[in-house]
Amino acid sequence: MYDGLKGFRDFYHAEMGPRREVIDTLEATAKRYGFREVGTPAMERTEMYVDKSGEEIVEELYAFEDKGGREVSLTPELTPTVARMVVAKQQELSKPIKWVSTRPFWRYEQVQQGRFREFYQTNVDVFGSAEPEADAEVLAFAADALTNLGLTGEAFEFRVSHRDILGGLLAAFDADVDSREAIRAVDKSAKIDDEEYHDLLIEAGLSADQATEFDGLLDTDAANLDELIEFAGTDRVEAAVTNLQRVLDVAADFGVREYCTLSLETARGLDYYTGVVFECFDATGEVSRSVFGGGRYDDLIEGFGGQPTPAVGVAPGLAPLSLLLQRADVWPDEGFTTDYYVLQVGDTRDVAAGITRELRERGHIVETDLSGRSFGGQLDYADSINAETVVIVGEQDLEDDAVTVKDMASGDQQQVPLAEFPGDRDRPTFEDF
Amino acid sequence: MYDGLKGFRDFYHAEMGPRREVIDTLEATAKRYGFREVGTPAMERTEMYVDKSGEEIVEELYAFEDKGGREVSLTPELTPTVARMVVAKQQELSKPIKWVSTRPFWRYEQVQQGRFREFYQTNVDVFGSAEPEADAEVLAFAADALTNLGLTGEAFEFRVSHRDILGGLLAAFDADVDSREAIRAVDKSAKIDDEEYHDLLIEAGLSADQATEFDGLLDTDAANLDELIEFAGTDRVEAAVTNLQRVLDVAADFGVREYCTLSLETARGLDYYTGVVFECFDATGEVSRSVFGGGRYDDLIEGFGGQPTPAVGVAPGLAPLSLLLQRADVWPDEGFTTDYYVLQVGDTRDVAAGITRELRERGHIVETDLSGRSFGGQLDYADSINAETVVIVGEQDLEDDAVTVKDMASGDQQQVPLAEFPGDRDRPTFEDF
Repeated sequence: MYDGLKGFRDFYHAEMGPRREVIDTLEATAKRYGFREVGTPAMERTEMYVDKSGEEIVEELYAFEDKGGREVSLTPELTPTVARMVVAKQQELSKPIKWVSTRPFWRYEQVQQGRFREFYQTNVDVFGSAEPEADAEVLAFAADALTNLGLTGEAFEFRVSHRDILGGLLAAFDADVDSREAIRAVDKSAKIDDEEYHDLLIEAGLSADQATEFDGLLDTDAANLDELIEFAGTDRVEAAVTNLQRVLDVAADFGVREYCTLSLETARGLDYYTGVVFECFDATGEVSRSVFGGGRYDDLIEGFGGQPTPAVGVAPGLAPLSLLLQRADVWPDEGFTTDYYVLQVGDTRDVAAGITRELRERGHIVETDLSGRSFGGQLDYADSINAETVVIVGEQDLEDDAVTVKDMASGDQQQVPLAEFPGDRDRPTFEDF
Repeated sequence: MYDGLKGFRDFYHAEMGPRREVIDTLEATAKRYGFREVGTPAMERTEMYVDKSGEEIVEELYAFEDKGGREVSLTPELTPTVARMVVAKQQELSKPIKWVSTRPFWRYEQVQQGRFREFYQTNVDVFGSAEPEADAEVLAFAADALTNLGLTGEAFEFRVSHRDILGGLLAAFDADVDSREAIRAVDKSAKIDDEEYHDLLIEAGLSADQATEFDGLLDTDAANLDELIEFAGTDRVEAAVTNLQRVLDVAADFGVREYCTLSLETARGLDYYTGVVFECFDATGEVSRSVFGGGRYDDLIEGFGGQPTPAVGVAPGLAPLSLLLQRADVWPDEGFTTDYYVLQVGDTRDVAAGITRELRERGHIVETDLSGRSFGGQLDYADSINAETVVIVGEQDLEDDAVTVKDMASGDQQQVPLAEFPGDRDRPTFEDF
C-alpha cells in the first residue's frame, strides 16, 4: 500500500462533485464576461521566477534539473506564464485579452488549514487596458462569482486599496524610505502586533513619528480620500486616489460597489502590483486570512520583454474559497444523482442494454448491472447511487412485451409497455404512466 | 522574453475552445454511463512506478528529490494513482467503482507528431467487476465518445484482443517461453519488420517453427476462435476465448460491436494488462499509431496491497485523438462567439453597465468597452469577438429613453425603448423589434 504525498490531495467522487460544481460556477461566470479559456503548462524555466522574484523564491518552488539539463519548476502561480504567453503573441492578440483558466499549482510550503502544496485556482486576467473599467470588471466578475455560488454581501467583503497611494504617501515623507519594504510591512500588519509593525516601518526608513502618522493615514475612509491628496501634495497621490475613486464608481455601475470596502492596509504581498489591489475576506471574520486577492500589475509584461501592456487580474483559490462557502453553509451537497438504473432479471441483458443505450442517448445518467448481481443486490446498488427511477427488465414482463418502472422515492411501481419505454418520451418517469 | 519548455504547450483561446469542446464531449459521455469525476495529484512517490514497472521507468519520468528528501515523480499515467486510491478506501467504496477524470500527465520522451512531454488524457475506469459487462461498458463508452465527437464507423476501429489468449497460446508450445517478452514482441510487430519480429519471438524462447506457427495463429478471426482452444487444449485458452466472445456479445447488445475487430496482434505494451485489451485505430490507416487503448488489469490492485479487485479502463489522449478528428474533418471550429457587445457612446457608462449586467444575469456572453475606445473602435472590437448583437447606448438615444440594437450579421439596426431592452425577454435580438 502506497501513501500519497503530504500536501497533495486525492478527491474521491463524493468530494469532487461539489468541487466541480464550484469550478463550473466560477468558469461560467467568467465566460459571461467574455473571458476565454486558455491551457497552460505545468512547468516553466526556473529563471523566469528567479528574475521576477529573486533567488529566494526557489526555496518555495518544486524546482529541479530535468534530464536535458534545464533548470525547471512546477508553476507556483499563473501570472508569469500568461505574461510570457502575451509577450510571445502580442502582435496577433487583439486587446483587451481576457483569459480564464482553472488548474493546480504547486509550492513547497508548510501544510496548514486551507493551504496545501498542490492547490487549485481559477485565474482571470485582462491584458491591454489601463482604464478603471478593467479593474472594475475584474471586481465585478469576482463578486458575481461569489453571489452565483450562493454567498450574500453579509458573507464576504472586498477590501480595496491602491498600491500607488501607499507608495505615494511614503514618498511624501521627508525620509529615505524603502517603499517595497514598507508596503510589505503594511501587508503583514494585520498578522503581527503593532509594535512589530512599527518597527518594520522604521526599518524601512520612517522615523517613529512618521510611522505613527503613516499608520494613521491608512485609516482614511472612502469619503475622505481627498485628505490624502492634501497631505501628500503630489500628482502621484492625486492620480492614484482619482483612479481608485473611478474604479469604485464603475464598480457601482456594475452593481458590485456594495461588496467593496476601502482598506488602505490591504497591500497584497506580491511585489508586482502597481495600482488597485483587493483582497476578499470573510465578512464574519471567522476565516481570518484573505480568501483570495487580485489587482493591477501594469509593469510585468514589459519586465518580461514585451511592449508596455497594462494588466489586471484575480485568482480565487479553491481551498480558501471552500472554507468561506462552508462557513456560510453554501458549499454544494456531496450527494450525486443517477437518473436511471436498468435492472436485469434473468437473461434479459440484450433488452436491458438497449433501453440503457436509448436513455443515455437522450443525455441521462444511466447505470445497469456490471457485476452479475441478484435482484436485491441490484436494487441496493441502485439505491446507493441515488437512482431516481429503476427500470426492471424481467423475463416474465418481457413475455408481455412490458417492463416495470419503479419510482425510488415513493417505492411505487407500474408495468409499462416496452414500446413506450422510453418511446417518444425524452425523460420518462413513473409519473408518466 | 522567455521560452516555454520543449514538449510543453501553450493553448491560446482560439486553440483551447475546440479542445474544451472535445474534453466536454468525452466527459459528458462518461457521465451518462455513471462514471463519477475524481481529482488526483500531479505527483507521487517514485517508488510506486519503480515497483510496478522496474527501475528503467525512471528514465522516462520527471523524477526528482523534493525539499523534504522524498523521491517524487510527476505522474506519467493515472492507473497507479487510482489503484492507490482504491486500495486506500476499498472498504468504504461501493462496487463497481466508476471513475473519470481529464488532466495532464508528464513523460520525458522524444517529442514527435502527436506526442508531447506534457499530454492530456481522459481516464475512465471500472473497479470491482470481473464480468464481461464491465469490459463492454468501457468499449461502449469509448465508441460513444467517438461518435459523439462526430466520427462514424468508417473513421475508426477498435482492435480487440485478450492477453490471456496470447499467454495461453505461448504456454501451449513445448518450449520455455518468456511470455512477457513474447507479448512485447507482438505489441511491436506492426512497427518492425517480420524478420526482427520473429527474432524477438525466438529470443523469447520459441523455436523458429513455433514462431511461425504462433504468428499464424494470431491471424485467426472472430468466427474461428474455437480453433485456438483446439490448438492449445487448455482451460486457460478456453476461458480466455470464452471471455473475449462474451465481451463482444455484450458490446453487440450495447450497440457498439460494429466498431470492434478481433485482432490478436493487439497486445498493448504495458505489462499490467490481464484480459481483454483493445486499441483504437484510424480506420483509413492515415494515422498509423494507435489513437488510444485500454483493457483489463485484474492484478494491479492486489499488487498495490489491496484486496483482489478486478479492473478495466481506457484512456483517450487528446493529442492523438485530435489527429484522428482532424483527419476525419470533425475537429471543432476555432471560432468563438459572443452574444452581445454593449457599445458606449458618450457618457453612458452607467446605463451600458446596467444593460451588460442584466444580460449577463440571463446567462449570456456579454462584453462592453474596457479601453475607452471610439465608436468605430468598439464596433471593430465587437466584430473581432464575433458579437451577434450590438447594443448601442448613446447619449442622444437615451434622451428618448431608447437604445439602438444592431444585428451584426445583416448590419440592420433599430431604435428600441430602453424599458424593452432586455425587458422581459430572455434573449432579445434585432428580430424581436
